[in-house]
Amino acid sequence: MAVGKLFLIPSPIAEGDPDKIFSAVWKSDISHIRHFIAEDVRSARRFLSSLKVFPAIEELAFSVLNVNTPEAQMSALIKPLKEGIDVGLLSEAGCPGVADPGAGVVALAHDAGIRVVPLIGPSSIILALMASGLNGQNFSFHGYLPVDQHDLTNAIKRLEAESKSKGTTQIFIESPHRNNRLLQTLKKTLSSSTRLCVALDLSGPDEKILSKRLDQWPELELPKKPCLFLFGC
Amino acid sequence: MAVGKLFLIPSPIAEGDPDKIFSAVWKSDISHIRHFIAEDVRSARRFLSSLKVFPAIEELAFSVLNVNTPEAQMSALIKPLKEGIDVGLLSEAGCPGVADPGAGVVALAHDAGIRVVPLIGPSSIILALMASGLNGQNFSFHGYLPVDQHDLTNAIKRLEAESKSKGTTQIFIESPHRNNRLLQTLKKTLSSSTRLCVALDLSGPDEKILSKRLDQWPELELPKKPCLFLFGC
Repeated sequence: MAVGKLFLIPSPIAEGDPDKIFSAVWKSDISHIRHFIAEDVRSARRFLSSLKVFPAIEELAFSVLNVNTPEAQMSALIKPLKEGIDVGLLSEAGCPGVADPGAGVVALAHDAGIRVVPLIGPSSIILALMASGLNGQNFSFHGYLPVDQHDLTNAIKRLEAESKSKGTTQIFIESPHRNNRLLQTLKKTLSSSTRLCVALDLSGPDEKILSKRLDQWPELELPKKPCLFLFGC
Repeated sequence: MAVGKLFLIPSPIAEGDPDKIFSAVWKSDISHIRHFIAEDVRSARRFLSSLKVFPAIEELAFSVLNVNTPEAQMSALIKPLKEGIDVGLLSEAGCPGVADPGAGVVALAHDAGIRVVPLIGPSSIILALMASGLNGQNFSFHGYLPVDQHDLTNAIKRLEAESKSKGTTQIFIESPHRNNRLLQTLKKTLSSSTRLCVALDLSGPDEKILSKRLDQWPELELPKKPCLFLFGC
């Protein structure tokens, strides 16, 4: 029996019309899928419904995969694939498998000989990197930096030293309510010649991308919204 | 006088129908642009022409930006923007500013107070990361590893040690004629429990993504085609 394919389906990263992001051909490529794995079923249902390519949203089957899903349950998630059924893996926002719990299922699929099909879509990390003016030939994404103020300052110093010696662009995120604390710590810690970029609401109506050398950074209050931070020497 | 906006326009990374990648809304958003900066004018013209949204391709103006463009000439590239004209920056393939010479122009635009607008499109790095099943919460892109065999082996050992201690997924590329040499060196150097992923012709008709622990890697001859390599512990 032929096995199914695991489609990795990106979703929007900001408010707006999905027809701006996803082409008609892209949508028709996934319109045959009836089984989905998602972090949050409600928002996955809302997104798929907005694409207007599925006959009846009630007929779609959803399995949940989040940070609390035990590894033992993951193999159940790929069972339909082994039975020849195509499955779509969705992230809460952006690309599944990048900064979300999807990678474990993808690895299991590979080990079971199932073909994995990554689809093109929005990635806030790549959009921010493109727009930063920083080195895109060598970059690292770190997720969250430490919360403790002392550890945070040390982490920034270490990343800046690496950027100075290798040219690495350093990319990280922060919980929105700590955006301003992180920005102040970056301004206090980084050298005046380092370029710092802050990217807010990428691809959304309030998109704002600021990229300046530290000695030219303006006074700026960041909103409590998802934000990417990047710097490079 | 209002300044123009710098649009960062991704282009396809494989053969195929651009209507599969770019939505009608996406295309109409760039259809007013008449000034472009591109690595190779011929292929940029071919791509823009394939979108079928520009009235006459002969009326589009192109400036060249490649690895040989001296920094002094870069400021000439943003002159139309200062005069209020929107400009599109294109890469040879994929996202401008990522693994191409575009970042310099983007930084200049920021310094001149010009708004930078990154558009959503294909990134081989993100597609490979999504499809690898490797950790997407912490990853590094290194471009090319050293050519010298001794340095290459040492670089792989160093990256594997970092992956073991921090969980970093290591991503890199190679000149296609050296794909097999790199694969053999990875197989000889990495631990048996490390997962190695090879991604070929992403989003194209011959897409092939293999991701296995080293002790389960099959014998495999890689074609002389663009390929991404990823591993993680």
